[in-house]
Amino acid sequence: MTAHGARAVERCRILADVPFSETPGSLFRFWLGPAYQRTLTQVAQWMEEAGLTTRLDAAGSLIGRYEGLTPGAPALMIGSHLDTVRNGGAFDGNLGVMLGIELVSALNEEGTRLPFAIEVMGFGDEEGSRFAAPMICSRAMAGLIESVPENMTDASGVTVADAMIRYGLDPAGLSEAARRPDELIAYIEPHIEQGPAIESADGEIGVVTAIAAQTRQRVTVTGQSDHAGTTPMTMRQDALTAAAEMILAVERNGASGGATQVATVGQIDVTPNTSNVIPGEVRFSLDMRAETNEARDAMAEAIRTDLRAIADRRGLGIAFDTPQYLPAAACAPELVEGLARAVTSVTGRPAQRLLSGAGHDAMAMVDLCPMGMLFIRSPGGLSHHPDETVRVGDVDLAHRALLAFVKEFQS
Amino acid sequence: MTAHGARAVERCRILADVPFSETPGSLFRFWLGPAYQRTLTQVAQWMEEAGLTTRLDAAGSLIGRYEGLTPGAPALMIGSHLDTVRNGGAFDGNLGVMLGIELVSALNEEGTRLPFAIEVMGFGDEEGSRFAAPMICSRAMAGLIESVPENMTDASGVTVADAMIRYGLDPAGLSEAARRPDELIAYIEPHIEQGPAIESADGEIGVVTAIAAQTRQRVTVTGQSDHAGTTPMTMRQDALTAAAEMILAVERNGASGGATQVATVGQIDVTPNTSNVIPGEVRFSLDMRAETNEARDAMAEAIRTDLRAIADRRGLGIAFDTPQYLPAAACAPELVEGLARAVTSVTGRPAQRLLSGAGHDAMAMVDLCPMGMLFIRSPGGLSHHPDETVRVGDVDLAHRALLAFVKEFQS
Repeated sequence: MTAHGARAVERCRILADVPFSETPGSLFRFWLGPAYQRTLTQVAQWMEEAGLTTRLDAAGSLIGRYEGLTPGAPALMIGSHLDTVRNGGAFDGNLGVMLGIELVSALNEEGTRLPFAIEVMGFGDEEGSRFAAPMICSRAMAGLIESVPENMTDASGVTVADAMIRYGLDPAGLSEAARRPDELIAYIEPHIEQGPAIESADGEIGVVTAIAAQTRQRVTVTGQSDHAGTTPMTMRQDALTAAAEMILAVERNGASGGATQVATVGQIDVTPNTSNVIPGEVRFSLDMRAETNEARDAMAEAIRTDLRAIADRRGLGIAFDTPQYLPAAACAPELVEGLARAVTSVTGRPAQRLLSGAGHDAMAMVDLCPMGMLFIRSPGGLSHHPDETVRVGDVDLAHRALLAFVKEFQS
Repeated sequence: MTAHGARAVERCRILADVPFSETPGSLFRFWLGPAYQRTLTQVAQWMEEAGLTTRLDAAGSLIGRYEGLTPGAPALMIGSHLDTVRNGGAFDGNLGVMLGIELVSALNEEGTRLPFAIEVMGFGDEEGSRFAAPMICSRAMAGLIESVPENMTDASGVTVADAMIRYGLDPAGLSEAARRPDELIAYIEPHIEQGPAIESADGEIGVVTAIAAQTRQRVTVTGQSDHAGTTPMTMRQDALTAAAEMILAVERNGASGGATQVATVGQIDVTPNTSNVIPGEVRFSLDMRAETNEARDAMAEAIRTDLRAIADRRGLGIAFDTPQYLPAAACAPELVEGLARAVTSVTGRPAQRLLSGAGHDAMAMVDLCPMGMLFIRSPGGLSHHPDETVRVGDVDLAHRALLAFVKEFQS
C-alpha cells in the first residue's frame, strides 16, 4: 500500500523550489508564470498516474476527474490552489491538491468507484500574488466574475488579459470557467491551518465551521517630494511619516477587537524611494478580517476614519481604491458533520471545530455549491514563510479522514 | 553677445528628458548608465564649442579644461554633478556644470586668458542614486577613496566594479582620478539652493559659508513573516509596524532641534511586501543633518537609542550598518569674501550668506583644495522634484557674478 500522506508531503517539497519556483532557493509561484506552467505539467502527470483525466479550464486552473459508477455524474470536488506568496511555504494550497490526488490514488488502487465523480482541483490564483485581486480562478468558476479584471497589472506592467494570452488562454473566454451548480455536489478544501488553534488544542486535524469576513483595500497618501537636506521639518509634506502614523492606527484598530479580528499592512510602495528625498507618495495595502461581516465593516470604517484624520491633520491627500469585500463564508452543516465523523473515525476523538482566519478559494466556491474544509495542524502556527511545515502523521490522518468521508458520503 | 544665463537654463531643460534620462517623461540619470553616457557626449560637445578640451577621468567624471596664459598652470575648478535622483529636477547639479561652460564661453568670446587655467567639472555620482554611497567621483578626485567600494550593488545587482567595466573604465585604476593639491587652486560649485532661504530673503543669489554635517545609515528591522489572516495581533512580530513607530521617532527627533537640523527616512524596502503576509523584514534609510558635527552626532545617537528601544519593546531584531559621516565643511573665507564681492558687484546689494543643508561634491573637494559655493534661488524651495525650477534672470546674475569673481581672482 502506498504511503499516501508521506507522498503528498514529499511532492509538496519537490514543488517548493526550481523549476517549480520563480526564485531559486525559495518558493514563489504566481498564476500563469513560467514556474506555474512547469508545476501544472508535473501535477497533471501525477494526476494521470493516480487515475485522473486532466484538463486546463478557461482561467488556467488544473482539473483532474475520476469518474464514478456512472460516467458524467455530478462531482465531489476536492482540492485547493497551486500558486504561492513570495518566499512562501511548501504546503499552503499545494497540500490540498496533493491530498486530492492521493485520495483518488487510494480509490483507484482499491478499484473503488463511487456513485459520484471526484474532481481534484488545482486553482491558479488564490493568493493574489501577481495581480491585486485574489481568487480570480475560483471566482470565475463560481461565476462571480464574468470578464477579465481591467486596469490591473502585475509588477512588470503585464495586464491580466496579456498574461492569459501569453499562457495560451483566451481572455474573452474567462466566463467559460464557470460551472453549473448541478455539475458539483460539494467542494471540499483540505488545507494547513496556518494558525495556532489545532496545535494549541494538541490536535492533528480539525473541521472548519466558517471562513472569516475579509476586506482588502489600497490606500494612496500624497504629499510633496522634496530635498531631504534643505526642507525644514516644519515645511514638509512627507507621505511616509504620514503613512507610518497610519500603519500604527491600523495596528491599533486591529488589536482593539480581541482575538476575533486582525488588520494588516503587508505591502508598501514609496515614491521616489531614495534616501535623500522626502517621499512624495506612498501606497499601501490594507487587509482587514473579522469573525462576522458586521465586525469587519465596523473595523474597516474605523480605520478609514482614522486614516483620513491623519492625512487631514498633516495636510496631505489620501485616496482609497474600491474595497474588495469577501463576506464571511459558512461551511455547509452536513459537510461539517460528515467531516467531523470522518475525523473521529481515524483519531478516535471528537473533532475540533474552528474558524478560518485565512481566506480560501472555498470563500468563492460557497456561491456555487456546498463547501467544507479540513484543516491540518501547522507546527508553530507558521505559514507564508519558508519554514512553514506539516507533520507526515497529521497528513496521513487527513488522507484517511478524506477517504472515510467520501466513502460515507451520500451512501 | 550670447545670453549665457538663458542658454544654461535651456540646456538643463534639454538634458531633463530622454535621451538624457533613463525614464521618458521624467528625469532620472545615474552614474555610468546609458542616459549618463549620452549626456556626457552632449555636454562634452558643448564644452568643446565653448573652447574647452575634454577628457573622462578614471571615475567616469567629465572634465573640460581652458588653459590660462601659461599652459599647464594650476586650475580654478568650477562645476557640479551630472547625475540626478529618480524623478528629479532639471537644475540640481546640471546648472552648475552649465554655468562653468558659460563662464569659459564668455571668456573665450572676449579672448580672455587668465593667469590660471579653468577646469569645468561634471562629477558623475553626487546623489548616490545608483549605489548606496554618494559622491564616489568627487571623493576619488579628493583621494578619499582609493579603491572601488565592494559588497555594494545597484538595483539590478550590478557591482560598482562591473558598472565601471561596462562603461569602459578600469576599477583597479580608480585612484588615478585623484588630483594633486598643487594642480588645483580652488573648487567653486554654483548650485541651486534647493531650499527656501534666498527666496524668503527676496534675493536672487547667495554665498554659502558652510555645508551642514550629514550622516547616512541603513537600518534593518527583523521580525517574523506570517499569515495576515490567522496570526492574532498579540502574537505578531510585524517588522513594518515596528518600522512605522521608528519612522515617527526619526521625525520627532529631527523636529526637536529647530531649523538647524533635519532627519529623513526616504527609502524603505519591505520583505516579502505582499498584502496578505505580515512583513518579516524592513530595511530603511536614515539621513540626518545638522549645522555642526556635534549637533548631528547628538541627534543621530538619540535616534538610534529610540529605535533600539522600540525594537526591544516589540521583541524584534534591529541592526544598523556602518554610518557614513560627512563632516560639516567650511567654505574658504577668502572664497566667501571674493564671491560676496562679486555678487555685490552685479546686484548692488550686500551678498546673502547662508548654510547649505544639502550635501554637495564640495564636501569631498574641501579635503583637496579651498572650496566655495554660489547658490541660486530655488522658487518655492523646491528640489528633487520634477517641478524644480530657476529664474533665467537669477542664472544670468550668477553667470555675471562668476565672471566678475574669476577676473578679480588672484589679480
